[in-house]
Amino acid sequence: MIKVGIVGYGNIGRGVEAAIHQSADMELVAVFTRRAPETLQIQSSTAKVEHMDTLESYKGKIDIMILCGGSATDLPVQGPAIACHFNTIDSFDTHARIPEYFETVNAVACENGTTSIISVGWDPGLFSMIRMMSGAILPVGEDYTFWGKGVSQGHSDAIRRVKGVKNGIQYTIPMDEAVECVRKGENPQLATKDKHLRECFVVAEEGADLAEIENIIKTMPNYFADYNTIVNFISEEELKANHTKMPHGGFVFRSGVTGFEEESKQIIEFSLKLDSNPQFTANVLVAYARAAVRMNQEGMKGAKSVFDVPLSYLSPKSNMELMKELL
Amino acid sequence: MIKVGIVGYGNIGRGVEAAIHQSADMELVAVFTRRAPETLQIQSSTAKVEHMDTLESYKGKIDIMILCGGSATDLPVQGPAIACHFNTIDSFDTHARIPEYFETVNAVACENGTTSIISVGWDPGLFSMIRMMSGAILPVGEDYTFWGKGVSQGHSDAIRRVKGVKNGIQYTIPMDEAVECVRKGENPQLATKDKHLRECFVVAEEGADLAEIENIIKTMPNYFADYNTIVNFISEEELKANHTKMPHGGFVFRSGVTGFEEESKQIIEFSLKLDSNPQFTANVLVAYARAAVRMNQEGMKGAKSVFDVPLSYLSPKSNMELMKELL
Repeated sequence: MIKVGIVGYGNIGRGVEAAIHQSADMELVAVFTRRAPETLQIQSSTAKVEHMDTLESYKGKIDIMILCGGSATDLPVQGPAIACHFNTIDSFDTHARIPEYFETVNAVACENGTTSIISVGWDPGLFSMIRMMSGAILPVGEDYTFWGKGVSQGHSDAIRRVKGVKNGIQYTIPMDEAVECVRKGENPQLATKDKHLRECFVVAEEGADLAEIENIIKTMPNYFADYNTIVNFISEEELKANHTKMPHGGFVFRSGVTGFEEESKQIIEFSLKLDSNPQFTANVLVAYARAAVRMNQEGMKGAKSVFDVPLSYLSPKSNMELMKELL
Repeated sequence: MIKVGIVGYGNIGRGVEAAIHQSADMELVAVFTRRAPETLQIQSSTAKVEHMDTLESYKGKIDIMILCGGSATDLPVQGPAIACHFNTIDSFDTHARIPEYFETVNAVACENGTTSIISVGWDPGLFSMIRMMSGAILPVGEDYTFWGKGVSQGHSDAIRRVKGVKNGIQYTIPMDEAVECVRKGENPQLATKDKHLRECFVVAEEGADLAEIENIIKTMPNYFADYNTIVNFISEEELKANHTKMPHGGFVFRSGVTGFEEESKQIIEFSLKLDSNPQFTANVLVAYARAAVRMNQEGMKGAKSVFDVPLSYLSPKSNMELMKELL
């Protein structure tokens, strides 16, 4: 049995707990939290809830720590600190800082003989793998990525910061016409607003100027100004009733040509349709946790990305079983 | 530069030649054939055409041989014979015999310090990878694979063996309703004939009994009896004009659930739409040729499958470039 620790018990942490429950070869040992442990109710009856400060005392008792904190402030600190003592998996997704984060974690992991797979999930993660693999197979071609329909946490936060807004949520919606055009192999040049629509559901404070709120949202630089944005005003009750789920998904395409005369169009498409973004991300993290433990046992130490992991390491099945059943 | 040899110059071999042409880090050294070399016209002006018997004399001059023969009779002999002297890639696709073929090639490759990646292509190959990876991520769920629309060589051959048939071709067509049902997450139980339709275009000999031919085809065990089959009679001219391309493709789905109560539906879909099946297969072979050479240089010897290869090995880019550009 692979012994697992969960660091941080938000949506992803809870999803990891459920994913471990689905995995016959894994056992949850403890959930580590910054809150008072006795205030945390977890689902697994056999696992402990511990304060983050006790983490080091589990050295030798836990094979891998799955880090479920955020990329902004948690992971830059926790990643290197925990990689000193344990194999780790995280979903670090601040794109521009990935190389720097990789180097930091790699230095620590190499020094301490641990294995850390960083930036695991679906984007970065599965989408990155498909882009990488498809580009290697079809070197002459174009990549397209569409996200959604799904909730963007960053854009929802931006809405909630607008004066007069009490609550709100934002859905990123891929434009059907653009997706169809790519699927047909037309290799279109797409402007930002041709690819995605942004739909906002906003709860205004009483007496707020709705026209003003709508205008501020629609013209907000970086977040909304470059898109077609729809703003719907709804009640707090409606928001709670219809907008608390966290669906997401998206599409990755490689549209390329092959042959000496580049005469044949070849299209690779990968898509996800997720009822729960955090739960799916958690399931990806858990599969990579299995891989990290095996890589460490086989001497592959240091920081790794999803590009470095042979796919067979994700599965509890033996290589011969995989070959017989799935090749 | 990676120095490549092509063994066998049919549709796949020609596709491999074009794929090498698209790859800046690769150089085609020679094409090996069983025909008289002077009768073979290849596209690459700098490569040689050699008889198969001279193959061993290229030891040390070629980094990898891409085996483009068939699975029925060529590869079972060529695979182990050539793996004695060279790293190899092949697209061995007789599913039931893959484990046995793997063992044979593995024994030879281990003994001689070469690396051979077997059963490379899109199915077996990319489809297998998606099935494997998706099953590890969503352990509770169902797999669905649909093939087509595309030409099935085996079924086309079966038609041509029918008495009174001069020529013919068979398209495997996925049933839209079934694909849509899976895409919606309904996890249907699908009988063979619910998943695919078989459409035949048949050129009959003069005076042949068309009703009799249609009946023989539609009731042919293993090939057609379990399917809804459409038989169209056309002229030889129409066959030549409209049915000489080799399109193919298909869909792989994993439809699973996550969460403690298994409350969230999660759907992974991967699909290919290929104008040229052999050219696309060739491009996959060439990407894996790059991986095999690197694995051999790094000491990973013996037979491998696509499950054993870290994705980064498919790309000519460095790990840091991949991380910056694609993660």
